Amino acid sequence: MDLISLDDVRAAADRIRGSVVRTPLVPAPWADPERPLWIKPENLQAIGAFKVRGAFNAIAALDHPTRAGGVVAYSSGNHAQAVAHAAAHYGIRAWIVMPEETPPVKVAATRTWGAEVVLCGAGERERVAEQLVADTGAVLIPPFDHPDVIAGQGTIGLEIAEDLPGLDVLLVPVSGGGLASGIGTAVKALCPRARVIGVEPELAADTAAGLAAGRRVDWSITDRNRTIADGLRSQPSELTFAHLRHVLDDLITVSEDDIRAAVRELAVRAHLVAEPSGAVALAAYRAVGTPAGRTVMVLSGGNVEPALLAELLAG
Amino acid sequence: MDLISLDDVRAAADRIRGSVVRTPLVPAPWADPERPLWIKPENLQAIGAFKVRGAFNAIAALDHPTRAGGVVAYSSGNHAQAVAHAAAHYGIRAWIVMPEETPPVKVAATRTWGAEVVLCGAGERERVAEQLVADTGAVLIPPFDHPDVIAGQGTIGLEIAEDLPGLDVLLVPVSGGGLASGIGTAVKALCPRARVIGVEPELAADTAAGLAAGRRVDWSITDRNRTIADGLRSQPSELTFAHLRHVLDDLITVSEDDIRAAVRELAVRAHLVAEPSGAVALAAYRAVGTPAGRTVMVLSGGNVEPALLAELLAG
Repeated sequence: MDLISLDDVRAAADRIRGSVVRTPLVPAPWADPERPLWIKPENLQAIGAFKVRGAFNAIAALDHPTRAGGVVAYSSGNHAQAVAHAAAHYGIRAWIVMPEETPPVKVAATRTWGAEVVLCGAGERERVAEQLVADTGAVLIPPFDHPDVIAGQGTIGLEIAEDLPGLDVLLVPVSGGGLASGIGTAVKALCPRARVIGVEPELAADTAAGLAAGRRVDWSITDRNRTIADGLRSQPSELTFAHLRHVLDDLITVSEDDIRAAVRELAVRAHLVAEPSGAVALAAYRAVGTPAGRTVMVLSGGNVEPALLAELLAG
Repeated sequence: MDLISLDDVRAAADRIRGSVVRTPLVPAPWADPERPLWIKPENLQAIGAFKVRGAFNAIAALDHPTRAGGVVAYSSGNHAQAVAHAAAHYGIRAWIVMPEETPPVKVAATRTWGAEVVLCGAGERERVAEQLVADTGAVLIPPFDHPDVIAGQGTIGLEIAEDLPGLDVLLVPVSGGGLASGIGTAVKALCPRARVIGVEPELAADTAAGLAAGRRVDWSITDRNRTIADGLRSQPSELTFAHLRHVLDDLITVSEDDIRAAVRELAVRAHLVAEPSGAVALAAYRAVGTPAGRTVMVLSGGNVEPALLAELLAG
């Protein structure tokens, strides 16, 4: 299977420059001196998550006539807003398929960007999206199973390597695997001695099981839905799994309690609001232990319900 | 009175480059389309507040033999940690005078940087600091009443002008006035058509009263202590007041309720934790109304007690 290359990530960076926030590395002087820590705060993107990078790159890479036909995506989460935002930027139509049980606040946020939201029944969203593609001629932008989406997320790795070339350890959340695949590709090429470590919730550890088995392992959605980290309930595709096998040195799993504590710590000590999925790398750093050396953790997103955030802060 | 110039701010930027976080502008797509809003998140500095910029510049500007003698500062807040952090960076001693009633967490944070904390009685801190200077030969780094401190804070304005040269409106908190003086100097020089607007709590509006009167007006500390914005209880010096008269186009005051709501909005919608003092610019934007056009608000710091943050999130 063809994997993306550093050149693909560099091309993505050229395409999306100026359209996404060039996030800094935020120092964490409260962290372990043996493992100096910096945070890559992707919650500062306009939609509150890294997903804009892949969405902008995938849409920017389309040829003009194709792009003019508009785009389709299915997502109840950050990818929905990312595609809607990128489509608005390029002045094209976007149809976003969302499950009927999606919280109204997320539906409204997606419509804010001018996207047309198509609600559907549980388990129906891929079929409805395919039908929309057939009916409209628009292009499907998948949440992770696409080389241009992976390369777009990889631009985070380029920026990390630029800001901290002496990086020793990179901690990145794993769900569908697009984020870790892209970042890992860039970091392994530019900082070959850095260890790239994925992080998953114990309750959605299908990729940990898959890497141990040497092939993808399916966990039921009922099982994966148990974790509070609602952005980490997807499973890799063949494409992202092939990348993960290639770029990950290790994969750490974290408990629900440790995820909750990490959200609190990021708010209190780093002044950054993370959604539970965005805090798993700190959970691994704090609770599980990670190798010594200069460490960067990817804070992937910050879209958390205010009531949950207040509850987690109360501890 | 001599005011600092754009050249002073540029010299400060050269001195502190690489020692402080180069913060991005964070877009706020949820804001009023007539007044597109970006946030300058100075809560991402290592100590959680902009104060590092002035402290690093003031210490970097000392000649070597003077610097080697160490520094003294008095502060119960962010300036204490800023000077302690900068002193640690330069490998020199720091004595920080703090009132006995300072929360233990802030004393501990200051000691983390290796500073010597000297506790003193209420109203004694300036006298104790002067005695330390006399006894040790160290140099006093004041929180705002110094050209190098003002120029250091002004580097925020350079970065804003670089990232958004078409800026129309800048909103900045005012307390001792160092932040607004420095940023205003840079922005007025680089974006002459931009309006620079200070923001104060209604309950500590001595500068609003002073600008109206054309001279500094003294509010009692008892009055100023009423505001929840504990970082905005200082009053300008002659030096900062002269700058503020020169660079501010307007000064807006905000209510306590609006400050509280702004902290909540920054956490929920911008994924940034602000202390109440750091949120006043958003309070002005939301509640009072600000001129049309591309607007940047300075989020000056994020050091808020977890319990208070949880309370403000609950709304």
